[in-house]
Amino acid sequence: MEARPHDSPSHDGPAHDGSGRVRLRFTPAEREVRVPPGVMVFDAASWNGIAIDSTCGGHGTCKKCKIQVTSGEVPISPLDMRAFDAAQLRAGWRLACRTSAVEDLVVEVPPLETRPKAATVGVGRQVILRPAIKKRYVELATPTLADQRSDVDRLTAAIDDLELRVDLHVLRRLPSVMRQADFHVTAVIVDDLLIDVEAGDTTAECFAIAFDLGTTTVVATLLDTGTGTPRAVASMLNKQQPFGGDVITRISATMLDPEALGTLQSLAQETLRELVAEVCAEAEVDPGQVYEVALAGNAVMTALVLGIDPEPLGVAPFILSSATMPGVRAVDLGLRVHPAAPAVVLPSLGAYVGGDIVAGMLASGMDRDKRLRLFIDVGTNCEIVLGDGERILATAAPAGPAFEGGAIRCGMRASDGAIEVVRLDDEVVLQVIGDVAPVGLCGSGLVDAVAELVRVGILDASGRFVPEETATEMVPKLASRLTRIGKERVFVLHWAGAEGDLTDAVYLSQRDVRELQFAKAAIATGWSLLCEELGVEPHEVQQVLLAGSFGSYLSASSAVRIGLVPRLPVLRIVSAGNVAGEGAKMTLLSVPERAGATTLLEEVHYVELSDRPAFNDRFVDQLAFPA
Amino acid sequence: MEARPHDSPSHDGPAHDGSGRVRLRFTPAEREVRVPPGVMVFDAASWNGIAIDSTCGGHGTCKKCKIQVTSGEVPISPLDMRAFDAAQLRAGWRLACRTSAVEDLVVEVPPLETRPKAATVGVGRQVILRPAIKKRYVELATPTLADQRSDVDRLTAAIDDLELRVDLHVLRRLPSVMRQADFHVTAVIVDDLLIDVEAGDTTAECFAIAFDLGTTTVVATLLDTGTGTPRAVASMLNKQQPFGGDVITRISATMLDPEALGTLQSLAQETLRELVAEVCAEAEVDPGQVYEVALAGNAVMTALVLGIDPEPLGVAPFILSSATMPGVRAVDLGLRVHPAAPAVVLPSLGAYVGGDIVAGMLASGMDRDKRLRLFIDVGTNCEIVLGDGERILATAAPAGPAFEGGAIRCGMRASDGAIEVVRLDDEVVLQVIGDVAPVGLCGSGLVDAVAELVRVGILDASGRFVPEETATEMVPKLASRLTRIGKERVFVLHWAGAEGDLTDAVYLSQRDVRELQFAKAAIATGWSLLCEELGVEPHEVQQVLLAGSFGSYLSASSAVRIGLVPRLPVLRIVSAGNVAGEGAKMTLLSVPERAGATTLLEEVHYVELSDRPAFNDRFVDQLAFPA
Repeated sequence: MEARPHDSPSHDGPAHDGSGRVRLRFTPAEREVRVPPGVMVFDAASWNGIAIDSTCGGHGTCKKCKIQVTSGEVPISPLDMRAFDAAQLRAGWRLACRTSAVEDLVVEVPPLETRPKAATVGVGRQVILRPAIKKRYVELATPTLADQRSDVDRLTAAIDDLELRVDLHVLRRLPSVMRQADFHVTAVIVDDLLIDVEAGDTTAECFAIAFDLGTTTVVATLLDTGTGTPRAVASMLNKQQPFGGDVITRISATMLDPEALGTLQSLAQETLRELVAEVCAEAEVDPGQVYEVALAGNAVMTALVLGIDPEPLGVAPFILSSATMPGVRAVDLGLRVHPAAPAVVLPSLGAYVGGDIVAGMLASGMDRDKRLRLFIDVGTNCEIVLGDGERILATAAPAGPAFEGGAIRCGMRASDGAIEVVRLDDEVVLQVIGDVAPVGLCGSGLVDAVAELVRVGILDASGRFVPEETATEMVPKLASRLTRIGKERVFVLHWAGAEGDLTDAVYLSQRDVRELQFAKAAIATGWSLLCEELGVEPHEVQQVLLAGSFGSYLSASSAVRIGLVPRLPVLRIVSAGNVAGEGAKMTLLSVPERAGATTLLEEVHYVELSDRPAFNDRFVDQLAFPA
Repeated sequence: MEARPHDSPSHDGPAHDGSGRVRLRFTPAEREVRVPPGVMVFDAASWNGIAIDSTCGGHGTCKKCKIQVTSGEVPISPLDMRAFDAAQLRAGWRLACRTSAVEDLVVEVPPLETRPKAATVGVGRQVILRPAIKKRYVELATPTLADQRSDVDRLTAAIDDLELRVDLHVLRRLPSVMRQADFHVTAVIVDDLLIDVEAGDTTAECFAIAFDLGTTTVVATLLDTGTGTPRAVASMLNKQQPFGGDVITRISATMLDPEALGTLQSLAQETLRELVAEVCAEAEVDPGQVYEVALAGNAVMTALVLGIDPEPLGVAPFILSSATMPGVRAVDLGLRVHPAAPAVVLPSLGAYVGGDIVAGMLASGMDRDKRLRLFIDVGTNCEIVLGDGERILATAAPAGPAFEGGAIRCGMRASDGAIEVVRLDDEVVLQVIGDVAPVGLCGSGLVDAVAELVRVGILDASGRFVPEETATEMVPKLASRLTRIGKERVFVLHWAGAEGDLTDAVYLSQRDVRELQFAKAAIATGWSLLCEELGVEPHEVQQVLLAGSFGSYLSASSAVRIGLVPRLPVLRIVSAGNVAGEGAKMTLLSVPERAGATTLLEEVHYVELSDRPAFNDRFVDQLAFPA
């Protein structure tokens, strides 16, 4: 934490706009990677699964991350002068954590003295475990008149590979804990901050909690940072729900009532607090041994939980209070974990590309994959990222509430009774959440239903239901389901009673189809403009990642059928799961990954759609379904 | 603030034990100074009143503190590479705030572009105003869709000579303040932390409060840091008084009752809080515009006000929790000033040489004067410092409560009715605080009384009252005052009623004289051992500074007469006043002086008296009064 707003890698190298990268070749592994200029070699190696020795985690204090630059120029830092002699410096030896890559380099990595652990996290990523939380058990000499060092000096001298800052909270406990434990204590360090000293050896207990703070659902994962394994997961609805289902209604609430910001903050914090209690109880972990938390949320959720006025996020020109949220502590989020635990708040790229998406990019490795990849987080506000290993572009498209069941006649959230899968053959095959009788249609069911109706010919390419006679001709067994409610044409997916009895039936109306067309056209306009900006064709995309609580459940073939994603083989379309939560976990397990989140802010180029003259034309083009 | 426990200058140069200094010659001023190795040239210049351009105050961000090293070697820092071209670097150009003096140097200082203000503070010291509090008024462009920078980025881009960290408190207010003020705002920065943003131009209001937290008396000074002038001063008794008059009784209280630490903390904080209200009301300053505070107190007072267990300070081997107290905020001291205001807590050298003494050394320039100087803070625990411009030695002597009127039959604190000056000729001449009838004897009166009795021959060199007949012979007009109470001999200074009526009389007893002898012998043993350690004779001392609420009021000639100070011409003995408070003020007015306080910790060598075999012999030698 404590990252400064301007403490970005570009300050150590030439400025860049996401357009240029430098090439690093690591030997003897013979791995070549491309990273934004200015990134530290230590971080670049970590991001690509190449381990370099270190006990301080990149703070320049342990002097163990020795590398030899065998090709390319890198300046000598003051720390290098202390770590190496003149001959070694001339031979290219440097500390990886102080070596900024501003040009192409070849870097020789010495054999490891200790093999660091790794964990699989995010979208199949192997992350080397370098958590910010470090525990050190030390047995100290008892003070004497001849050795009157202060308690802090005595402790820090025994941990000489780290340069510790000391929290006031620790100073209050230190004298009694040290003496009660006979000077055999465990130092609890997060990053370079000593947050506690515990009696005896407690090095086995190292916990952290990652939060995905969604507008609708909030998920907490309790992690053992020593092993990288999740110990418990819990989720619940965001208690802010009564203020409205989307971010705009919640911003409006704060604009209408000066008390609302405080209330919304309390509700979000209460949600997080209950989840802490739940995961700690489940794993039988003392919340006081949760030493760090991470939070990924969209920009509005992040502002609300921290008590920051969200109004400028909701009105043009859509301005963040701050992209990064340094120096936040778990107590600032209302959490009852270790009282001095820091909180990593994932930074936001813009008002509509928030920390959840930055976390998603981290989890999916959008910045470290050479393939042309498209990342889509489908929701009311739909975030779209396109990267080719050289440049990364991002935008946000206002898809509206259709995917969450809003503005859809029989729409509902993805809960018991919601149709989530629809197949049309001679009959209607439905898959219903909770295996109960269908009561409505959630987002994935909606997309499936429309896609299937287009496939069988009941909807035409423009999104209109075909005349009844045409339907009867093409799919006779389904035609009877095409009927009307009032003047509006509807297709009945489920008759609750007898066929023809519309009471409690679940159906899709012509207006529902239009809503979905508007939603998917907004998304398609987004990715098509990003492709144009990057100079690629949509069919060249090698992987599409569908993220978010809705996107992950979407049928790939249906998404292709309605044109929500580019027309690609379905194997290239991957459900990415809860990438926001995965990204938050990664920041807890790896300090270099955390630095990567900040690097992303510099690297990703945000494309604002709303002021593009081409937007409306493109949008109209995308309303139709692909042939 | 945020100084790390190990972030001391010696880490950037060879270790030193206070024995070696390096020589810096500044041209064209032709000033030569000697400083501990490792000190930054920028700080060394500031300490000696030599101004170097800077707007960031030594953080390496403004790149204005350019100097040319014309003799001596200094490495090139990464920042130097950005500030200078190759030819300039070869010619010795460097940034003064990144140049550590590890060997003798000649430094050319370019003419100033802006002339910094200076203030007289401490013991006649001229301090260049470089307060940590900086206010910057900026008129920012309004955001547009083409300029979607976050509020923080917009603001910090306009203040590009500083690299700001941003407090969460600011992020909460920033969006509304900026918009309400039409983006014309004043940034409030302390060190490199943005603590607030105020509407409009408020640069004229910059306040800070310095506290001298004494065991007995607490003093607060409200400073205008823009001009360096005090705006109001207030003092009151420390509300911890009911727990005992000295630090030991207060420590004991915490050992006997687990609630006592909390109570003592609250009482100290309440004292500070009332003083804040008082000085702000007097100067008509909004406490919310007090952006920083500094606190100098002995190690026990410092621990108690911060809620740190003081027990190890009170029992051998006398151990501090921490020498430095980084990252403390005004709210941690219970203060109601600006909610994000940092607090500078003066560091302690040892359990018995606390932040008040470090502040005193700073205020009196003990580390930057070539003269042989002796600093004595007279009190229950008496701190003694001896420096010669090369080395600085410190110790603490247990003088006991005599100077504060404790254990003295007619002793009292220096308040109304206390005899503070005594002259004996043919009659007794008394000066009484408040110009009222005498009711007792305070410390300076006690010293005067004993000194005068020795001078006129009523007390002999061993401290015994001479026989009555001898007294009658030597000072016939005073002899009648030499009488007895019970078996004990006393000298009556004031008859409340008729001569011979001891009711309410103020007198000095034989036992009182013994108490004073013990106290002054402890002090004299301290400085004589320090002189021996430094290899100098006491008569070589060029200046004696008497500090503390008692020491400042002491008569120089009486101090010499009883042997409390070395036998020196009285003009060499100077009353230093409230040096602790002055030192605290200096840290608020000058960031380099603040760094100097931390440098002192490295430089001063603490001499522990209690384990010296010579201590008892020396102590006995010093009991007598000098011939």
